[in-house]
Amino acid sequence: MDLKEYVIEINDYPIQGVNFKDITPLLKNSQSFKYAVDKMSEYVKKVGATIIVAPEARGFLFASAVAYASNCGFVIIRKPNKLPREVYEASYELEYGVNNLQIHQTDLKKEDKVVIIDDVLATGGTIHAIIELINKSGASICGMAFLADLTYLHEDELFSEYNKLSLIHY
Amino acid sequence: MDLKEYVIEINDYPIQGVNFKDITPLLKNSQSFKYAVDKMSEYVKKVGATIIVAPEARGFLFASAVAYASNCGFVIIRKPNKLPREVYEASYELEYGVNNLQIHQTDLKKEDKVVIIDDVLATGGTIHAIIELINKSGASICGMAFLADLTYLHEDELFSEYNKLSLIHY
Repeated sequence: MDLKEYVIEINDYPIQGVNFKDITPLLKNSQSFKYAVDKMSEYVKKVGATIIVAPEARGFLFASAVAYASNCGFVIIRKPNKLPREVYEASYELEYGVNNLQIHQTDLKKEDKVVIIDDVLATGGTIHAIIELINKSGASICGMAFLADLTYLHEDELFSEYNKLSLIHY
Repeated sequence: MDLKEYVIEINDYPIQGVNFKDITPLLKNSQSFKYAVDKMSEYVKKVGATIIVAPEARGFLFASAVAYASNCGFVIIRKPNKLPREVYEASYELEYGVNNLQIHQTDLKKEDKVVIIDDVLATGGTIHAIIELINKSGASICGMAFLADLTYLHEDELFSEYNKLSLIHY
């Protein structure tokens, strides 16, 4: 299945110069959605993960189903003022903007083996912040999985020290 | 399984007088997460839905896995300036605040049979707006499923004209 057929490219959204990847057609088609989730879940099982970590909001679109399909726990990373208990915080720069991310301090344990999931890998700022949060928690990262990798926005070496899966490349 | 054991109640969060339901322990335990998703998926199959509709961000936490497990498509509802194509919009009042929700105009078709999924049913404002968006799309609503129903925040009759599942009641 060619997943790119289910992604619409939209120029100059949300701001001029950005080519936005609209993945909503892929989600709404049960076959393409299942195909993408199954591929990510096979990867999660292969690398031996026990926990899926994903950032709001679009990371949740695949992480929830992958956690379910691979029988992993699901730990969420959110923007400030969303998690009610004690948090670790890391800042990041987006393709367009700056923000902070948080994780509950007690959600990950040292023995947890984590795969990070997000919809799109762009410049990698979000993922850098997530890695920082997981490292503060003491858990180990055994991989990361993305629906789409926007290779034109980063060096080839980005996160090459980690095991990585991308189902689509631009 | 008593799912309430996996939810932490936090008083006066995010503002005074609100009893926040922290569902992150339920997500991070693979058994409780699977149990909740399986219960929702059984319901989705029973009512004959073909599409899961859910609002960002916490609605996605269950909707993605339920769409996968019940072999449904997944249509997302987002806050303004997140969906790149033509949208319908509806406004809603939250337990604490006011906001707008949007759906892509072409994501739902008349023949789609929808179950709405969210983590918590509070005053129902979000769900009222989602119903308005689905009605504008012309699809039919065959049910709604929530992890938790905060019955003390609304009348018993709320959405009684719809088929409804709640896994936990407060």
